[in-house]
Amino acid sequence: MSVALAPSRLRADFPGLVTPGGEVWHYLDTGATAQKPQAVIDATVRAMGADYATVHRGVYGRSAEMTLAFEAARRKVAMFLGGAEDEIVFTRGATEAINLVAQTWGLENLRAGDRILLSELEHHSNIVPWQLLQARTGVAIDVCPLTADGKIDLAAAEKILTPAHKLVAFAHVSNVLGSVLHVEHAAALAHNVGAKILIDGCQAVPRLKVDVAALGADFYVFSAHKLYGPTGIGALWARREILDAMPPYQGGGSMIDRVTFARTTYAPPPQRFEAGTPAIVEAIGLGAAIDYVEAIGLDRLHVHEVALARQLREELRRTNAVTVFGPDDAVGVVSFAVEGVHPHDLGTILDEENVAIRAGHHCAQPLMDHLGVPATARASFGLYNDETDIAALLRGIERTKRIFG
Amino acid sequence: MSVALAPSRLRADFPGLVTPGGEVWHYLDTGATAQKPQAVIDATVRAMGADYATVHRGVYGRSAEMTLAFEAARRKVAMFLGGAEDEIVFTRGATEAINLVAQTWGLENLRAGDRILLSELEHHSNIVPWQLLQARTGVAIDVCPLTADGKIDLAAAEKILTPAHKLVAFAHVSNVLGSVLHVEHAAALAHNVGAKILIDGCQAVPRLKVDVAALGADFYVFSAHKLYGPTGIGALWARREILDAMPPYQGGGSMIDRVTFARTTYAPPPQRFEAGTPAIVEAIGLGAAIDYVEAIGLDRLHVHEVALARQLREELRRTNAVTVFGPDDAVGVVSFAVEGVHPHDLGTILDEENVAIRAGHHCAQPLMDHLGVPATARASFGLYNDETDIAALLRGIERTKRIFG
Repeated sequence: MSVALAPSRLRADFPGLVTPGGEVWHYLDTGATAQKPQAVIDATVRAMGADYATVHRGVYGRSAEMTLAFEAARRKVAMFLGGAEDEIVFTRGATEAINLVAQTWGLENLRAGDRILLSELEHHSNIVPWQLLQARTGVAIDVCPLTADGKIDLAAAEKILTPAHKLVAFAHVSNVLGSVLHVEHAAALAHNVGAKILIDGCQAVPRLKVDVAALGADFYVFSAHKLYGPTGIGALWARREILDAMPPYQGGGSMIDRVTFARTTYAPPPQRFEAGTPAIVEAIGLGAAIDYVEAIGLDRLHVHEVALARQLREELRRTNAVTVFGPDDAVGVVSFAVEGVHPHDLGTILDEENVAIRAGHHCAQPLMDHLGVPATARASFGLYNDETDIAALLRGIERTKRIFG
Repeated sequence: MSVALAPSRLRADFPGLVTPGGEVWHYLDTGATAQKPQAVIDATVRAMGADYATVHRGVYGRSAEMTLAFEAARRKVAMFLGGAEDEIVFTRGATEAINLVAQTWGLENLRAGDRILLSELEHHSNIVPWQLLQARTGVAIDVCPLTADGKIDLAAAEKILTPAHKLVAFAHVSNVLGSVLHVEHAAALAHNVGAKILIDGCQAVPRLKVDVAALGADFYVFSAHKLYGPTGIGALWARREILDAMPPYQGGGSMIDRVTFARTTYAPPPQRFEAGTPAIVEAIGLGAAIDYVEAIGLDRLHVHEVALARQLREELRRTNAVTVFGPDDAVGVVSFAVEGVHPHDLGTILDEENVAIRAGHHCAQPLMDHLGVPATARASFGLYNDETDIAALLRGIERTKRIFG
């Protein structure tokens, strides 16, 4: 049995969790972006200061050491996901990672007549890149419906999938509903018809132990800033044989073998996909974030995120005039509506109580259309949240209802 | 008259300029990446800590403040370049900025039969993106030769340019030779035949006052990490009417107006080109870097960088068995060769003396082919360098010659 987290102690690691007036900030927007532990900030300061140098190029010692640190961060990402070091491509974030796959693997392999299967709960970052690819190639996009409780309906997916499908791209955890995808099952369905499967892991990696090999994924992407790491960096994992066959994405320094105006040859993966000076400091910060969450343990984070979501769902169900969206086994993310109160107004009033939630379409407008609402209120949890944050949220909802009542 | 810089005092602002043993580090690789002043590190720490929140989305106060800080950084970049706020697109760096232009403006506007003019001294980041575009469109690439002293030969460019040319893409300052382009002249030549002109400003912005309007540029790009700012961020400036007409680059959150599976519409620039959560902290760090260099003054930086390059060139000329490349009015960057010593060996021995130079092809293999060498040694200056760094370099060269003699 894993020992439960002690969020009240962990909070002390996060300088962002205090208001300017020194009060507790009830931060319930980790689904948008996570606060950063001091260990990540310290790693950033060292990398920008005493350790700073470029990578892969310098002949002096500091640059060689920085290169080791940068590549050690890549190795940490690989071990974190269960992949190999040369299967990890650093990107600006999950959005760029998906665009990279669409514009390299997609352009190379997909033609008019081919089909892609997405789901109704996808984030725009897992919809629009495929629409841009559609505009260039004529590939068709199918949309997998959801179950009544807001999960990707894999029974429906099985019926939709045909040999014309070359790719399935699904979120591992919904950023609106917290629904968890059974990735192994989805991967088996995709592979049965000869399709590849891409998993958007943004909301999963901070809340679940991910092992890409066990999951059967072909592509897996995430953003560091949702994993307690820096902005400006994320990663694409892809099977080595897929990466090997992918053409370059951006051209520039570091991704080439030899450049002449007559003919340029490219480096092997992952360098082929990392043109220009990389986000060196950010990669090292991501490595520190992985160290931090692994020291706590993904199993404990998972238990914590499931318990908080369940508690909030139960409390909201007992609250008059509140609708809760999503499944009962949601992890870390809970969307809801308060009758007669626009989510933005709720968010604004909660802010006065030092409670931060997100209100809006959460970059998932097709899911809003499915739910029949323009927006939801969303509370999302991190390792620093506990029942005191839930209590503050509930107090704020009651106050809002009084104001609007 | 501007007062001369006091690099020995400015050094104290840079925690990276000390060896682990507490000795002075003679860092002569600012052309690869600049060290960071404490002000940039401090801005990063605040943005990752007490101020941290996402941008453009949160309904709570901290997110609204972070959005203001992020957009203030964009305004600083705009004012720094002489452009308008909505003409600035944040990218990972200059490399991504050039790829963005190639894959949006280029794909939209260039066809087989059209021509692009590059120069023989371009960095790979201003060659390979156009070769990737060439592979997709069949556009032809011409190469402008160099003058005997290593400048882009604008008389030759004038002869090459025809109405078939739709784009000229030149470096403002060569990263190998320090040669400065007469941008106004090059822009006039491009515009005379109806072509647009893109300027790679990576080595220019830390060393020259840039005013894109006065220069007559259509696109201007740079990387923050060469301007004393963070890794993982840079900017593209483009004229508003050009940006307005450009299709999206990456798809995802923040760059859309409305998403449905049937039809997605896009936001106006610059958001159209900034899919996903941006490099928030890095943008704020870039703003702090601009504040830092502007407080010193670009005019003073320019005088300083010209003087150091001239002094080093003169000293190297007086040194036996050394060849100096590039023009006498180079700014900030000096490439050279020591007879009988491979640049890498020179770099390694200099490292023992706490002198950091770059040795290699500097991501400019076509220029190496032009110079008839596989690699050069390169010293490049920053605002923290002075004659003591030059003296240390010269002592190290003498020691190397004794070792190899």
